[in-house]
Amino acid sequence: MKIIRSVREMQIFAESERGRGRRIAFVPTMGYFHEGHLHLMREGRRRGDCLAVSIYVNPAQFAPTEDFEAYPRDFERDRRLAEEVGVEVIFSPDNREMYPEDYQTYVEVEGVTNNLCGISRPRFFRGVTTVCTKLFHIVKPHVAVFGRKDFQQFVTIKRMVQDLNMDIEVIGISTTREPDGLAMSSRNVYLNPGERESALSLSRSLNIANELYKKGERETALILREVRKFIAGHPYVQIDYAQICDTATMKDVPRIEGETVLALAVWIGKTRLIDNHVFGEPLDI
Amino acid sequence: MKIIRSVREMQIFAESERGRGRRIAFVPTMGYFHEGHLHLMREGRRRGDCLAVSIYVNPAQFAPTEDFEAYPRDFERDRRLAEEVGVEVIFSPDNREMYPEDYQTYVEVEGVTNNLCGISRPRFFRGVTTVCTKLFHIVKPHVAVFGRKDFQQFVTIKRMVQDLNMDIEVIGISTTREPDGLAMSSRNVYLNPGERESALSLSRSLNIANELYKKGERETALILREVRKFIAGHPYVQIDYAQICDTATMKDVPRIEGETVLALAVWIGKTRLIDNHVFGEPLDI
Repeated sequence: MKIIRSVREMQIFAESERGRGRRIAFVPTMGYFHEGHLHLMREGRRRGDCLAVSIYVNPAQFAPTEDFEAYPRDFERDRRLAEEVGVEVIFSPDNREMYPEDYQTYVEVEGVTNNLCGISRPRFFRGVTTVCTKLFHIVKPHVAVFGRKDFQQFVTIKRMVQDLNMDIEVIGISTTREPDGLAMSSRNVYLNPGERESALSLSRSLNIANELYKKGERETALILREVRKFIAGHPYVQIDYAQICDTATMKDVPRIEGETVLALAVWIGKTRLIDNHVFGEPLDI
Repeated sequence: MKIIRSVREMQIFAESERGRGRRIAFVPTMGYFHEGHLHLMREGRRRGDCLAVSIYVNPAQFAPTEDFEAYPRDFERDRRLAEEVGVEVIFSPDNREMYPEDYQTYVEVEGVTNNLCGISRPRFFRGVTTVCTKLFHIVKPHVAVFGRKDFQQFVTIKRMVQDLNMDIEVIGISTTREPDGLAMSSRNVYLNPGERESALSLSRSLNIANELYKKGERETALILREVRKFIAGHPYVQIDYAQICDTATMKDVPRIEGETVLALAVWIGKTRLIDNHVFGEPLDI
C-alpha cells in the first residue's frame, strides 16, 4: 500500500493507473476509521481496480467554534485497517499542500445546502464541496463512495458532480450502526457513558417515525412532534434540527410523498450527532 | 472535424482520446472567430495531438443588462475557420445541456476577481469560472489556451486551476491586433465608423503609458492621469476603469514594481471594450 502526501505525486499515480486502463475507486475520509468507513472501502474495492482513500481533516469545513483541533486522529491505526481491507493508496496531504497561503477558490452548491446543516453550519458545505472538488482532481476517480449517514452532504456532492459535469459515478452507502442502533461516527468517542445512552435517542426516534409511517401516517408535523418529544425526554440533549425533507431539493415537506428523508442533528452534551432515515427504505434498528 | 452537442458524447470522445495516449489541447470560445481566436487554436495545435474548441455563449457570465442576446454568432463561418486551422472537434452545446432547470453549483475565485471587471460586472467571473470548470470536466484537456486580452480572466482561470488542483496546463497568448492597433474582439462589429476611430484611444493610450515607462516613469498615478486624459479626449467615450495592478493579486499599486499590468475598460458608445499592457513586455502598436 502506498502512502502519498503530495498532490503532484498522487496525480501522476492516478494518471498512470488510468493510462493502464485501471478503474479508480475513491473513498474520501477524515480518518479515524470505524466499521462504516470500512464498509465504504469494501464497496470501493468491488467497484474499482485500484482503491484510493484520502485521510484529511479538512479545515475549510469547520467553523472556528467547532472541533477541528479536537477531531480524533490515529494515522497508524487507519493505515493498518486500510491495508487489511485492500486499499492500494492512501492520499494524506497536510494543510499547506491543500490550502497554500494565497488560496482563494471555492465551489458552492446553492439549493440543496440551504436547509438543515446549511443553517446550523453556514460554511460547512462550501468546505466540503471545495475539498471534494480538489480531491477529485487529485485522485481522478471513476467512482467515489460516500456514506449516507451524512445525507445532505451526499445529496450535495451528487448535485455538484452532476452540475459541474464531473465524470464520476457517486455511490451512497447506507449507515453502519452499533449493535444498539447508534450510527457509527468518529465523533462517538467524545461521548461519556451517560451521553452515549442519550445518543440512542436519535436512532430510536427514527424507528418511532418509521413505525408511524408504516401505520400509514404521512403528515410530517405529526411525525416530527413525536420525534422531538421522544428525543427531548433524554438528558444532555438539545435538538439542533429534526425535519422531513424532499431528497431532491432538501426542502421541508408537509406530507411524505416521493422520496423523503427524516434528518436529525442533536447535541448530546458538547457533541453534535446526525442521523437520518429515508421513508420506505429498510431500517434495522 | 467532429461537431459534438452533447456533454456525454464529448466526455466519451475525450476519454477515448486520452486512453489512446493522445494529448488534448482545448480553446474555450464564445465563437464569432477573429484572427485572435485562430492564433489560440494554432498554439493549441502545436501543444496537443487533438485540438478541441468549444463554441458556447455562456449566459452565466452576462448580466441581464448586458449583450447576451445581441452577442454576434455565426456557427457556419466558425466551423469553416476551425476546420481550416486544424481543429479536430468542436463542442457546442445548447443552454439546456449546460444549465438544466435545477442547476445550482458555482465556482468562485475571490481575491483576484475583486477589482476591475469584478467591480463593473459583479457576476461575470463567477460565470466564467463555473463554465470553464464545466468545460474542463467535459473536454478533459491536458492544456487549455486563453487570450491575454482578457487579462483578469486569464489570471482568474490560472488561479482557479491551481487552487482546485486541476491537472491542466494553462497557456496565455498575447493580444492579436488590427493593423492600426485595435485589440481584436468579437464585439468590434458593434462599432460604427466614428466609434471605431475612438476605439483606437485604448491601444494608443497603452502606447503612451509604455513610452512613459520606457523613459523611467514608475508612479502609476502620473501614468494613469495621462492615459485617462488621452482617452477622455475622444468622442463617444466613457472610461469604466483605467488602473495599474499587480498581476499576482490584481490589486492597484502606487508604483510599477514586479509584474504590473495597465488594464483598461472603456465604453465606446454602447460597446464596452477592454485592453491591457504588462509593463516590460513587447507592445507593437
